[in-house]
Parts: sequence; structure tokens; C-alpha cells
Amino acid sequence: MKILILGAAGMIGRKLLDRLALPHALGTPIDEVLLHDLVEPAPPAGLPFPTRSFSGDYAAPGVAERLLETRPEVIFHLASIVSGDAEARFEEGYRVNLDGSRMLFEAIRSLPDYRPRLVYTSSLAVFGPPYPAEIDDDFLCAPASSYGVQKAMVELLIADYSRKSFLDGVVIRLPTICVRPGRPNAALSSFFSGIIREPLNGLEAILPVEDKVRHWLASPRAAIGYLLHAATIDTASLGARRSLNMPGVSVTVGEQIEALRRFAGAGAAALIRRQPDPVISAIVGSWPQRFAPVRALGLGFAGDADFDAILRTYVDEELNGRVDLQRTA
Amino acid sequence: MKILILGAAGMIGRKLLDRLALPHALGTPIDEVLLHDLVEPAPPAGLPFPTRSFSGDYAAPGVAERLLETRPEVIFHLASIVSGDAEARFEEGYRVNLDGSRMLFEAIRSLPDYRPRLVYTSSLAVFGPPYPAEIDDDFLCAPASSYGVQKAMVELLIADYSRKSFLDGVVIRLPTICVRPGRPNAALSSFFSGIIREPLNGLEAILPVEDKVRHWLASPRAAIGYLLHAATIDTASLGARRSLNMPGVSVTVGEQIEALRRFAGAGAAALIRRQPDPVISAIVGSWPQRFAPVRALGLGFAGDADFDAILRTYVDEELNGRVDLQRTA
Repeated sequence: MKILILGAAGMIGRKLLDRLALPHALGTPIDEVLLHDLVEPAPPAGLPFPTRSFSGDYAAPGVAERLLETRPEVIFHLASIVSGDAEARFEEGYRVNLDGSRMLFEAIRSLPDYRPRLVYTSSLAVFGPPYPAEIDDDFLCAPASSYGVQKAMVELLIADYSRKSFLDGVVIRLPTICVRPGRPNAALSSFFSGIIREPLNGLEAILPVEDKVRHWLASPRAAIGYLLHAATIDTASLGARRSLNMPGVSVTVGEQIEALRRFAGAGAAALIRRQPDPVISAIVGSWPQRFAPVRALGLGFAGDADFDAILRTYVDEELNGRVDLQRTA
Repeated sequence: MKILILGAAGMIGRKLLDRLALPHALGTPIDEVLLHDLVEPAPPAGLPFPTRSFSGDYAAPGVAERLLETRPEVIFHLASIVSGDAEARFEEGYRVNLDGSRMLFEAIRSLPDYRPRLVYTSSLAVFGPPYPAEIDDDFLCAPASSYGVQKAMVELLIADYSRKSFLDGVVIRLPTICVRPGRPNAALSSFFSGIIREPLNGLEAILPVEDKVRHWLASPRAAIGYLLHAATIDTASLGARRSLNMPGVSVTVGEQIEALRRFAGAGAAALIRRQPDPVISAIVGSWPQRFAPVRALGLGFAGDADFDAILRTYVDEELNGRVDLQRTA
């Protein structure tokens, strides 16, 4: 089996490649993995399959055709301009997130006898307030951002191209990923990871919202599990509804901090500095808080047990299972 | 006020123009109406405002810019390739219904200090089964056709362009229009009108589905009322949710026939010939049957009272209020 990963240099793309290297990741031997991103992906050494890396603008004419030359059976489409960028650069957001995806789907459609499994990572940004207490699988897409609109439009294309049998798409709407490894980033959701990651590394973290703020989270490990499951499930039962709300953990910031305290002690929790930001609070307050992902659960997508499990996943994957409690005491 | 009607040669476009000619149709004097369609619209004589007619492909480069030269304050965007055509001609459907609309919105965005009211006619085709017993305003768009996907994508664009204040959009999702005047057309929904229209004109009508089939209907008069109301409502309360399910009448085919019998007698009803078609029955059976259009009603969109009223509207508007009961007795 040949696999193509678009957006392979990002955090999810790199973790996906790591996971594909484990035995039986997809239940089928992997012959080759093609990696594409704006910057050339640098796969780790020792992978059990050959890789080829490509760099550039995937939305440029001809690029999709080149990436499909070997007809990869599975395509993970993780590439996008992020939310804040799409909001600031209106034309570029539509060009990359919408037109780039459409060019990919058109390139797929143009190849005879080719119907790859396409796994697309969508986002909670397809939703907008007001919300019910728990968002079910029939809730409308009413995005509050250009990014969300672009994701929702691509979802519709995937449903139509799948219905017409041009490709075999599965859209997974990922919860906010937590705990993201690395450093804080420009995303407004960055603090959901920061308030756990920084204290576990003995660093101060800024919390810009109130403790009662609730959100929908999943670990990177759960997210990779969703990607692999989406690549292998039987899509016959999906019909025209190719978009699935992924399982997550609904947790308040206060509950996150309690989990941190339980795991690493009061000293760790004390590293969180509350610095309320009304602008961030207003935006984060418009995000969904809780889902009932009945379809995804029924299809076997399995998420994190609770926030303690999410925290331990970070410690396992990024800190080799050990936290220097001395430092955080 | 200057008005642009895209798709002006169609049944809705022509009736809209007639209605605009009545006093106080929009509450503001009308200075000019621009009419565009694939074939040149031929406005009736005696209109109380000047018109200019344009013909051609509205999705061709430069056309939208030309139509916006005089900066119409209200744009009625009724233009589209119909459902069956969009399904048969995949590329052409996306080019006209999606790309044409996007080019129009981009042309609007490119004009400084210009933010027209844009009224877009969407469709029940944005929905797909399975449905709840009554579809509420939060129900997802899961189209079962390329046409529905294109409509849903344009809806998302209008929401985003409105949120960014590039235009001021109102999307009205019209029920199936009944009773359509004229002759049967290729639409699968044609019989909903045909079983009333043909008998009232002394002609036989074919009914390809069972009497128990239920659907969501509105008269042409109600639809024009929705268009005018959408052109004038205060959009401040709409937020990012610019798409509104329009009021309609939920009625079974059997109830339609009963209304015909009440109005025109058993002889009229006897002109309906039952000729079940499993293919048509299956497709029509996948259409929505009933809505709870709470938002639209709250915004003052007012529909038909019942199916008897829909039938009388046809008789009033198309038969000058008289049916030759001799002929249908």
C-alpha cells in the first residue's frame, strides 16, 4: 500500500508517520509513504518503509497531479492554513484551504479507475454559537470564521465526490488537541496545552480565561488513532454523510488544573498564572464545549478515557514517562 | 434604489419583476432594474421603472463586474443550473452554481464602499435523509445531490462574506414551488404542480408516487413575498447564520388531491392518473417532508395558510380566478 500525507511536517503529520512505522498500523504492509508540506518533511531514520519528501505549495497547478503519479491508495489530507492566518488573509485562506483541496479532488477524479481512501482532518471551527448543551451528529455547520467556512466547504466537496464514487472520503472533525508538545503557538487555543505542558516542564504558564471555561479535547495519540481508523473503516454505512464528530473529553480549565495537581502536585499547579484576557475569553467562549459523537463511537473511533489519560499521554510520549517533580514541587 | 436580478428569465424572476412593479414593493422607490439571464429577459410593457436586460453566462469572467457597474443596492441571485442538470453535468454544475456565485461575491468585494443586500434562493436540496419528524433550524446540511452541495457551499460563502461585511446576505431555502404555471418540466417534483394544474385546465395528470407521500410546498406568491421580505429585513439579528428555512405547507399528495376535489369537484380529481414509478418514488421519498421554520417566522416571513390557499393562488394568478368546471366535471 502506498500512502500520501499532505501537511506531513506538522505535529499531527509527524506523529502519524511515527505511528505508521509501528507493526500493523493499517493492517496492510506499507510499500511507500509520500510526504508533502510547504517545507520539506524530514522523516526520522529507521522507518520500515521508503519515503519520498516533496515541498512547496500543494495548491499550485500541477502539484496534485505529481503527488498522485504513483496512485497512493490512502491519502491523509492534513494540509491547511491555520485559523488565524485564514482570518487575516482572506484570499490566501480560500486559495489554500478550499481551492487547493478542490484541485486535489479534481486531480483524483481525472485519473481513471482510481478511487483512493481520502482522510481529511476537519475542525470544531465548522460549528458556531449558539450551541445546545450537547452537540449531536445532526447539528448544523455555522462557522464563525473563514477557516471554518473553508473546512465546511471542503467537507461538502468530499461528501459529493464520495457519493459520485470519485474518491472514498472520511472527514474527521478533530477536538482541540491537548497536550500539544513543543512551545506555545499563536493559536488562541494554545493555553489549553500550555497550562499542562509548561508546569510539567517547570515553566510558568499564562491562563487567559476563567477556570469554568469548558472545551472539547483529545490527545495527539487519540487523534492519530482516529486518522488510522478513518483510513481503514468500511465506509459503506456512511452514505452521503462523510463527516464525523470525533470523540473527545469535555473538561473545564479548572478540571484540567485539578488533574495537573493530582499528577504533579500543588507546585506544578502554582505555575499557572491567571491573566484574564477579555478578547481571548470572548472568542474561546464561542467554541463548542461538548459533543455526543454517537456515529463515530458506533463506527469504533475510540478516544481518551478522561483528562488524566490525556495528561499521562503527554508525559508518556514527550517526557519519556517521567516528570521531574523536584522541579515542579 | 437600483436592483439586479440574476436568473430573471425564470418563473420566479418574472413574477418577482411583476411584483416589484406594484406600489411600495420594497418600501423604497425603484430607479432601475437590471435583468440578467442566459437568454435575454423580456420584461413586460408598462413597468413603472426603467429596465436593462443582459444575456449570457453570468459565470464568465468580467460579467459580474459589468452587472455591478451601477452598484445595485439589492441583488436577487436566482441564477443556477437546475438539480438534474447539475447531477448530469458535474463540472458545469460546479462552474455555474458555485464558481459563478463566488465570482459575483468577489466582484462585490472588490468594489470599495459597496455592501449590497444579496438575496439568494437556496433549496431543500441542501438537506438529505435521514430526517427527524420535523426539521428544525439547527439541522445539518447533508445534500444528496451535487446541486444541493453547490447550494450549501454558496450558503457558506454568503455567511462568510456577510460576516466580513463584504456584502449583506440573506439566504432563503425555498420549499418546492406549487402550483407552478405553464407546462410540466423535467424536474422530478413537477408532478406536485401537475396533479393540480393539469386537472384545473381540463387535462390529465400523471401521479408517479403514492398518495401518502408528504412534501413541503409554497406558492409562487409566497416565494416572491419571501424574496421581497429578505431584501428589506434588518439583518443585524442574523449573525453568522444567514440561511433561513422558509415557511411552507406540509401536505400529502392525497391531501392535495382532496383540496382539488373540494375546489373543482370529483371530475377534476378523476383526471389524475396513478402510474407509480419506483425510481421517482424512491428519490421523492428521500426529500424533506416538514419543517419548523421558527427563525423565519420570527423574522416575519409569512407563508401560505394551507394547501387550499396555494391552490386558490394558482387559480387567481394564472386562471384569472376562474376554472371552467364544465370542462373538469
